[in-house]
Amino acid sequence: MNQYLKHDEWSIIEEGFNPMNARASESIFSLGNGAMGQRANFEERYSGKSLQGSYVAGVYYPDKTRVGWWKNGYPEYFAKVINSTNWIGINVLVNGEHIDLAECKIDSFTRILNMKEGFLEREFIVEMPSGVKVKVNAKRFLSISSPELGVVRYSVTPLSAKAEISLQPYLDGNVINEDSNYNEKFWDEVEKGFLNNGGYLITQTKKLDYVVGHGMVCNVTLDGQSVIDITDKNQYEKYIGCNYNKIIEIDQTFTITKYVAVISSLNCEKSDIGKSIRDSLNVAISKGYNSLIKDHIEAWADIWVHSDITVEGDVAAQQGIRFNIFQLSQTYTGKDERLNIGPKGFTGEKYGGSTYWDTEAYCLPFYLGTHGQKVARQLLLYRYKHLEKAILNANKLGFKDGAALYPMVTMNGEECHNEWEITFEEIHRNGAIAFAIYNYVRYTGDSTYLTDFGLEVLIAISRFWSQRFTYSESKGKYVMLGVTGPNEYENNVNNNWYTSSIACWCLEYTEQVVKQVKQIEPEKYKKIIELVKFNEIDEIAKWQKVRTNVYLPYDEKYQVFLQQEGYMDKEQILVKDLEPSQRPINQKWSWDRILRSCFIKQADVLQGIYLFEDRFDVETIKRNFEFYESRTVHESSLSPCVHSILASKIGKIEQAYSLYLRTARLDLDDYNKEVHEGLHITSMAGTWMSIVEGFGGMRIQNDMLIFNPHIPKGWNSFSFKIWFRDNLIKVKVTHQEVTIANEQGPFLTVKVWDKPFNVNSSGIIKI
Amino acid sequence: MNQYLKHDEWSIIEEGFNPMNARASESIFSLGNGAMGQRANFEERYSGKSLQGSYVAGVYYPDKTRVGWWKNGYPEYFAKVINSTNWIGINVLVNGEHIDLAECKIDSFTRILNMKEGFLEREFIVEMPSGVKVKVNAKRFLSISSPELGVVRYSVTPLSAKAEISLQPYLDGNVINEDSNYNEKFWDEVEKGFLNNGGYLITQTKKLDYVVGHGMVCNVTLDGQSVIDITDKNQYEKYIGCNYNKIIEIDQTFTITKYVAVISSLNCEKSDIGKSIRDSLNVAISKGYNSLIKDHIEAWADIWVHSDITVEGDVAAQQGIRFNIFQLSQTYTGKDERLNIGPKGFTGEKYGGSTYWDTEAYCLPFYLGTHGQKVARQLLLYRYKHLEKAILNANKLGFKDGAALYPMVTMNGEECHNEWEITFEEIHRNGAIAFAIYNYVRYTGDSTYLTDFGLEVLIAISRFWSQRFTYSESKGKYVMLGVTGPNEYENNVNNNWYTSSIACWCLEYTEQVVKQVKQIEPEKYKKIIELVKFNEIDEIAKWQKVRTNVYLPYDEKYQVFLQQEGYMDKEQILVKDLEPSQRPINQKWSWDRILRSCFIKQADVLQGIYLFEDRFDVETIKRNFEFYESRTVHESSLSPCVHSILASKIGKIEQAYSLYLRTARLDLDDYNKEVHEGLHITSMAGTWMSIVEGFGGMRIQNDMLIFNPHIPKGWNSFSFKIWFRDNLIKVKVTHQEVTIANEQGPFLTVKVWDKPFNVNSSGIIKI
Repeated sequence: MNQYLKHDEWSIIEEGFNPMNARASESIFSLGNGAMGQRANFEERYSGKSLQGSYVAGVYYPDKTRVGWWKNGYPEYFAKVINSTNWIGINVLVNGEHIDLAECKIDSFTRILNMKEGFLEREFIVEMPSGVKVKVNAKRFLSISSPELGVVRYSVTPLSAKAEISLQPYLDGNVINEDSNYNEKFWDEVEKGFLNNGGYLITQTKKLDYVVGHGMVCNVTLDGQSVIDITDKNQYEKYIGCNYNKIIEIDQTFTITKYVAVISSLNCEKSDIGKSIRDSLNVAISKGYNSLIKDHIEAWADIWVHSDITVEGDVAAQQGIRFNIFQLSQTYTGKDERLNIGPKGFTGEKYGGSTYWDTEAYCLPFYLGTHGQKVARQLLLYRYKHLEKAILNANKLGFKDGAALYPMVTMNGEECHNEWEITFEEIHRNGAIAFAIYNYVRYTGDSTYLTDFGLEVLIAISRFWSQRFTYSESKGKYVMLGVTGPNEYENNVNNNWYTSSIACWCLEYTEQVVKQVKQIEPEKYKKIIELVKFNEIDEIAKWQKVRTNVYLPYDEKYQVFLQQEGYMDKEQILVKDLEPSQRPINQKWSWDRILRSCFIKQADVLQGIYLFEDRFDVETIKRNFEFYESRTVHESSLSPCVHSILASKIGKIEQAYSLYLRTARLDLDDYNKEVHEGLHITSMAGTWMSIVEGFGGMRIQNDMLIFNPHIPKGWNSFSFKIWFRDNLIKVKVTHQEVTIANEQGPFLTVKVWDKPFNVNSSGIIKI
Repeated sequence: MNQYLKHDEWSIIEEGFNPMNARASESIFSLGNGAMGQRANFEERYSGKSLQGSYVAGVYYPDKTRVGWWKNGYPEYFAKVINSTNWIGINVLVNGEHIDLAECKIDSFTRILNMKEGFLEREFIVEMPSGVKVKVNAKRFLSISSPELGVVRYSVTPLSAKAEISLQPYLDGNVINEDSNYNEKFWDEVEKGFLNNGGYLITQTKKLDYVVGHGMVCNVTLDGQSVIDITDKNQYEKYIGCNYNKIIEIDQTFTITKYVAVISSLNCEKSDIGKSIRDSLNVAISKGYNSLIKDHIEAWADIWVHSDITVEGDVAAQQGIRFNIFQLSQTYTGKDERLNIGPKGFTGEKYGGSTYWDTEAYCLPFYLGTHGQKVARQLLLYRYKHLEKAILNANKLGFKDGAALYPMVTMNGEECHNEWEITFEEIHRNGAIAFAIYNYVRYTGDSTYLTDFGLEVLIAISRFWSQRFTYSESKGKYVMLGVTGPNEYENNVNNNWYTSSIACWCLEYTEQVVKQVKQIEPEKYKKIIELVKFNEIDEIAKWQKVRTNVYLPYDEKYQVFLQQEGYMDKEQILVKDLEPSQRPINQKWSWDRILRSCFIKQADVLQGIYLFEDRFDVETIKRNFEFYESRTVHESSLSPCVHSILASKIGKIEQAYSLYLRTARLDLDDYNKEVHEGLHITSMAGTWMSIVEGFGGMRIQNDMLIFNPHIPKGWNSFSFKIWFRDNLIKVKVTHQEVTIANEQGPFLTVKVWDKPFNVNSSGIIKI
């Protein structure tokens, strides 16, 4: 843990500058608007440790696969959302010396991420090596309302003596990805040039030919009044910059506003990018800074009105959940169906920014609840469009007859991951993709999705499972050999309870959907089965035969579902007995030691119980929770949220609360000592779930919204809003009562603690 | 399989040139002399597919580790024996056109590896693009008697018209390793210059600062008479070359003899390398070609006199075993204690040329039998010198109190391998290193090795095993979790029978050696236990407790030792039922499919039975052999030899024979479609074992040499020689009789078919 940020309900605040936290803060204070993202790098030069990162959504690079020892079946490349032109940069010189927080004496430093209004602000006073003191204020935002726009306002005020200040805004395409496999540079220059008070730079990726253009126009003022003209320009390969130079008196403020437009070939003909940049900048300049930020703040207000969660009486908890919602909303807005949600969003390079099962297992419920049916359906369609490639992928691994294995990591449907125990064995992802379809239909009631798209996906996934189970003569059961469950601290195990369970569920659910579609839409059903050559009788018979005779490991002594066969052969040590100095074990222990230990990264048995909760009585859930929670080190960001939800379910509210803090403040407090690599964006949706489904106890049963709320001791209240079938439901829970309001939409019946209540349009009930 | 080589008792012969086989032949026709090695690249330019390879023993490069996903505990580098200056090169131009077998029309082509005399010869006739026909004869050898010397003699004869022939010998340090992790070049130039009719080039590795100098002096003649002078010289970075140019009449022969000296900083002060090159070349020139090759052939005769195995009546089998002995003898001569035996020797880059457990498990018996005690002891000492690093390695993985884990791959004692399932889990290598000590002492009777070195190693290894077993409450037994056995087609399994068995054996043997040393050398014993802080009573008690209560999986149905827990859950398919098009499965199947299948790369249960044969009755061996052989695809080069030995043991002589062919001709017939990557040098020692221990049935029991020979149907006889405790024993087996002669050494009693015979010095017995 590393707690250096101030608690505040609506802002993230860093006071004082510690270079040890520089990379962590760059992650935490990241900005994004769905179309692009930017780590909280400084505008001015910074010679300390930094990960410069400007990312454009959907623009990726197929980086040649790097492995130690090639295994058959590995992909040729790993798709990476790549670092692109540094557009925030402004060199700032005082009497010829760079302001550089690694070199100057820092008198004061404050950095604020204003989550309510979506901007980042820094204010600091430094003493230059020459002795002059200056004050700096830097503010920037990535417009939510005009997603091609980023704006930086940067002011310098000499405090101790007049000084020659030079402001040098630039666009610099000479950037690298720290995680480039072969130190390759990913960009070539296409074109650059100067604009009036600015310039533009168009670059192209060396593979796939994505073209991205950045343009800047600057407005420089003295004390907010007199406009200063450009002094100088310069350019070299993939770089274009201006210079505004002036002697500034004490207490005068020299301010630059840098308007930047970012246009990519995803959204614009390549040949029109230059024009599009100029058009966008003209609009931005004519609107001006105040108007642009006003629109931006209003757009954020709109987001918050539907997605905010309030916690009264616990600032740390309040800040945590808002931070999670803020970062998620910055990453994926649902406006572009080609995009998805990378585990680190636009806040770092690890995991390549591609799509994982996180989207289906964690993000979908958040977007269902806060963005509604359309955005959620779009996330499902993303996978539907990749079905053909998933079938090819399974084929490559030896499966046949239309079986599909969705990739572990992907950008365009092709597998990118290259670690056999994950790529080939962490196949439970297929289950999550099927479950998302079920979850979506359960939540929205939109069964047309099944007919139009879902059934095809489900059949292909079930075909995979039915082939992936093999029959063990020695057990007289179907077994699933050689898998890695969500708990990646076990590799290549046999009969992972979670994977086998979700596989059986897929077979069962697909059978049910087959019947449903056949009955409701016989014509469409016929077309589908012809298309996918589905032999209903034989295939379903095979599925039934398999799923009713699967070996699911169980421990008689502890009466728990067993994570995998053989788990009880391990030395059983509890996390509480593990030396703190040994944690996180993934940074302290060699991999084999982790694998041999009983410690769990995320407890997949609990993940399975969470998904299929209705099948288990509370005592069973409790036994499994207690067994697995005590062995789980939560070194996956996806872990504590599920544990928190289950803890709420079984009434362990204080434990649910501490698990909630772990998920909500995972990055803010850097529990796993890795925030310098970027934020855990996808698990942030899990944080949302741990309030809505955990404390709120929200479930859908038989098309009905139900709530079984609990409130942690230290909270006065919490409230959240969700879209449910065109109703905007607001739930507020205090220690005394539960208030449910339908802020928009028709009449609705909900259940609270097993009792039905009618919530009229804009009506309020109190329980 | 790819059978394009002619069968011959003493030579490997390729007739006709097929570019598809070019890389394979480059491996097969490799030359070496223990100090350096050279793939059978052509002297003249070749623009087809080729792996240029010139290697200097002991000169390696710590190539920065390349992995996809870093795991804690991985090493920082992979040590590679590196490709160094191309010293065989001679550009040959006819009327300005390069002779290039990829470009010229080839009328005839013969390549011969003369194993008896240790040289490589090519003869071919080509038609140049211009139409001129020329004949070429190229012969070269790497002197066994003067290991710093290589000699090439290259002759060109115009056949159809006179032609201007240009012979351009050169030294070229602009070489790469095909397997370089980051396309890094490994060499810098130190110095170069011309010599009279030659030149020299000294280069240095970019890391570790190995310096290697190559010098050449050439002698060029016309029809073996008139000496031709140098026409021209040229040089550029890391390159130096000469040019001999002359118009040659039809049927005149233009011949160059290129003498090359290779001196490395391993054997010479860096500052003296230039002088040493000149000195060596002066000696070579003054001796002359005929004298040099005469010495070389005599040295080979010496090798063959001790190590030859004859097979009468089966040319393919005869050629196979000689090829194996030849290549082994080229790779490691035992003259330099710093060297060891890389899996591919000097014939390719795969596996980096470093030391694996192959040395102890396969090569040691060969060197014991053919080279005697001193060389074998040297191989053991190599590991003794690495003990400290093995303890550090174990420590890095969480083991303590002086436990040692020897590396999977090493050059200097540090682990180089970077694949968790191997690096951290293929720990049976520790057992092989202990077994080699036992094997050496059993064979030589030299128990001083135990006192002086062996006990320290054994204690450290046993400490590792006693910590690596953990107690399973659920089984009430000690278990060994998360290992990879010699059968690398199973990863991260629990209770691999072989690993657990050899671990128990280590604990038992170490206890026995402790007692023995304590009794025989109490003073030395005291010193050792002080040195290694050995707590005799407690540690031995712990070892006993563990080894007597280890879980060793057994299948009741088949009555076989079970490769690992859970093996019988796999679909049991036999290799005979596997489609030939699916083989080798490691080239056809994805890795997960291989892991899930029951197919075995090399059967480690059989490896264990081979090592501990005395513990099992013949029926048990037979049952296990039949069970595992039918599931083994032999895609490890180390596999068929052990199966062949066991097949001989249980009287399945024809099966032993076909397994023998598979090991003996593995590379010649390219069973596993990988000879283009280099030869399987270490498994060649296994071939030797499959004759001596297999058909010869040689064993050591209670200090006595015993033989239980069998002869395959198609053979008339086979014979081999072995050093045994200063006796040189020759065994000849026909269908009628066994002849045993003691060609050198004192009186000896041997057992044949359980009957003792006295073999006097140079006496002969016939049975």
